[in-house]
Amino acid sequence: MGMGRRYDTVSFLTDYGTVDEFVGVVKSVIRDIAAHVTVIDLTHEVPPFDIRAGSLTLARSISYVPTGVVLAVVDPAVGTDRRCVAIEVADGEGVLVGPDNGLLAPAVAMAGGAGRCVVLTNTEYHLEAPGGTFAGRDIFGPVAAHLCNGVDLYELGDPIEAELLLPGMIPLPREENGVLVAEVLWVDRFGNCQLNVGPDEVEAFGDTLKITVGETTGAGMTRIARRSNSFFALGTGALGLITDSYGMLALALDRRSAAEELQIAAHDQVVLAPIGDENAAGPAGGSVSSPVNLRITR
Amino acid sequence: MGMGRRYDTVSFLTDYGTVDEFVGVVKSVIRDIAAHVTVIDLTHEVPPFDIRAGSLTLARSISYVPTGVVLAVVDPAVGTDRRCVAIEVADGEGVLVGPDNGLLAPAVAMAGGAGRCVVLTNTEYHLEAPGGTFAGRDIFGPVAAHLCNGVDLYELGDPIEAELLLPGMIPLPREENGVLVAEVLWVDRFGNCQLNVGPDEVEAFGDTLKITVGETTGAGMTRIARRSNSFFALGTGALGLITDSYGMLALALDRRSAAEELQIAAHDQVVLAPIGDENAAGPAGGSVSSPVNLRITR
Amino acid sequence: MGMGRRYDTVSFLTDYGTVDEFVGVVKSVIRDIAAHVTVIDLTHEVPPFDIRAGSLTLARSISYVPTGVVLAVVDPAVGTDRRCVAIEVADGEGVLVGPDNGLLAPAVAMAGGAGRCVVLTNTEYHLEAPGGTFAGRDIFGPVAAHLCNGVDLYELGDPIEAELLLPGMIPLPREENGVLVAEVLWVDRFGNCQLNVGPDEVEAFGDTLKITVGETTGAGMTRIARRSNSFFALGTGALGLITDSYGMLALALDRRSAAEELQIAAHDQVVLAPIGDENAAGPAGGSVSSPVNLRITR
Repeated sequence: MGMGRRYDTVSFLTDYGTVDEFVGVVKSVIRDIAAHVTVIDLTHEVPPFDIRAGSLTLARSISYVPTGVVLAVVDPAVGTDRRCVAIEVADGEGVLVGPDNGLLAPAVAMAGGAGRCVVLTNTEYHLEAPGGTFAGRDIFGPVAAHLCNGVDLYELGDPIEAELLLPGMIPLPREENGVLVAEVLWVDRFGNCQLNVGPDEVEAFGDTLKITVGETTGAGMTRIARRSNSFFALGTGALGLITDSYGMLALALDRRSAAEELQIAAHDQVVLAPIGDENAAGPAGGSVSSPVNLRITR
Repeated sequence: MGMGRRYDTVSFLTDYGTVDEFVGVVKSVIRDIAAHVTVIDLTHEVPPFDIRAGSLTLARSISYVPTGVVLAVVDPAVGTDRRCVAIEVADGEGVLVGPDNGLLAPAVAMAGGAGRCVVLTNTEYHLEAPGGTFAGRDIFGPVAAHLCNGVDLYELGDPIEAELLLPGMIPLPREENGVLVAEVLWVDRFGNCQLNVGPDEVEAFGDTLKITVGETTGAGMTRIARRSNSFFALGTGALGLITDSYGMLALALDRRSAAEELQIAAHDQVVLAPIGDENAAGPAGGSVSSPVNLRITR
Repeated sequence: MGMGRRYDTVSFLTDYGTVDEFVGVVKSVIRDIAAHVTVIDLTHEVPPFDIRAGSLTLARSISYVPTGVVLAVVDPAVGTDRRCVAIEVADGEGVLVGPDNGLLAPAVAMAGGAGRCVVLTNTEYHLEAPGGTFAGRDIFGPVAAHLCNGVDLYELGDPIEAELLLPGMIPLPREENGVLVAEVLWVDRFGNCQLNVGPDEVEAFGDTLKITVGETTGAGMTRIARRSNSFFALGTGALGLITDSYGMLALALDRRSAAEELQIAAHDQVVLAPIGDENAAGPAGGSVSSPVNLRITR
């Protein structure tokens, strides 16, 4: 049996929630197999079955997780013949373990792309289970623990070409008649709305932009947003475009939820336009409120 | 002072929630007394005061928790003279610590029954406290930590016969005129409804069963449910009876909440009957919807 | 470079929530810098931006946290020039790290007052970040980890006099015409309402007191509350004044939420008066319900 590198840390992300014992049981299984391992919870509150949200969370986290195994489970097709995989990245500095449904793909890309990959077909490294619906406990968790113990990746199953893995889907913004049609990737606890746009992409639009939301639903709304480096500097009630902690643009308010103010959520479209360009506001068009009006129109 | 076996792991379950600092303070106390210990959270979201839900969660987890101490606190009678106990199981592979109110009993049974038991009367191993309402911090946590340090069980208080401990209550299904009257034990995050029925008990009913819920409230509803090994295989909108990850039957839908669909919760009655047996449907009787109708009737 | 004491534990409190990956990323950063450290979560569910709630939670916890670093982040002014600080307490037994906005002050006072203090100006011990909005990851977390590695406090930035740090604000009760005007400091998961009053302060009022809430909103309500050492001893439906686990008085019910019953929340005023003193009931005045009526009037 080939022995590989040992690891000390499992970074752990799921849609299991923490109300049931699922997360605790997976950690128990890991502890039982590899007692030296520290598990770091990234989050377990990915919305149930939401592969995209999970993959984005993982992609945001991946530059920060320590050397070791990343265990990620958002797995609506559990119990079917969807593939379970382990993917080496960064010359074996890390191994991502989870279902092959696109969940891991953006993080793998952020980590420099896939190295060796296997499908987890070797049931010797799984737990025997009374039912087939808890792969975190019965397949992914045990595999993560055995990897930490130094079991070589190729012991865990059949090699697979990285090109055959399911790709992730991250939406790209598109330019259209001088405006940028973007999308909300993530609304965080504080209501900040991360867009799929970096600061460079709107540099030509200047420090104050026109933001249109709700076009697709008919309930369009146009606002002015000011670029800013801190929430506080926005002042009360004024919408801002912050460069967030991941280097992306986010719609934000000082100590209030921009998502609530704008009535937007992940997946929603946001159109960014230079100010003063009346034609660029899109179908919802109309008048542009000034920041001081934001509270009144709420 | 007799020294016993040392332990490295405390598996921890409460109804404390994680909004307040209760869980963190208990872990701080354990860390202070026994710095070598790793604490694994099973869950802290047992509904407040819900001893039955806590005991079932613990029973589901017990086969997976590592060798060590299990610390469980759902303790509505805290501060009264209800007994605080520690119970050895599996020849000392594990010790369960908590209130003697039935919370520990099903897990103890699952672990093969109680070995040595004590009532935690030796206050030398407790923390002095300004008030008597936080036994997790002042009694159970310190005791768990001292056990990990190798303090012998009998040092912690007065031995008690296992027969004198409060039993747990797990409802059994009953056969009645050819149907099986069952109960929802647990609704998980995904809305799957675990029943107090194993797959063998309905084997004679075949692969497709008739499910009646809501009889006791008058809002009866009858549905067809198909046995399945995965959620996905059910197809969209079709109710299933899955053998869940603990080997019990659970009502389930693919990527949707069966609990919401059927308007049921823990404690609710579910009648299982063979299909085609019209008399067996119970008072709600009436017509049986086909799976494809499920979404319309919602 | 001066080397200081090493630490093994970081006790961690924020308003980050656990739905996003914020907490996990900070732990990842700490693990990366100081792999030997165990992080204990006090809570991450401080209400967003609520410095007072965070400071009270920290003050309640501080006597229990192990020797080591306390990392606390509730930081609405993140990204501005508000100071980031580290404060030694108890002769270096502990170091508190966080924003200088009053969050740390009550805990520092409870721990015996500030020793050496620095403003975290040495960016060598920070992480380079794409945006300035995640100081937990980029400043506080790394600093906590470096402290655990033995980096001396004075390496981390410029010393500052403790007197220049922002003080915390804990409201004091006041006596007024023979009654005690108190305030709800904290409502816990179970609905118990901790007041800013210790048992000694109402000793003269006897074992049964008159409680008036809602005066400031006009929806005044007066109740009788009995002093008790356990929830259970109150009996069903009777309001109690418990000496809680931190030695403060708390309004409580047996297995029910006193906050819900009385319609009160943190910050709300509660007037305590001796029974039979009709003039002391305050503006809401009127009749005093007996405990058995509590459920009916709900």
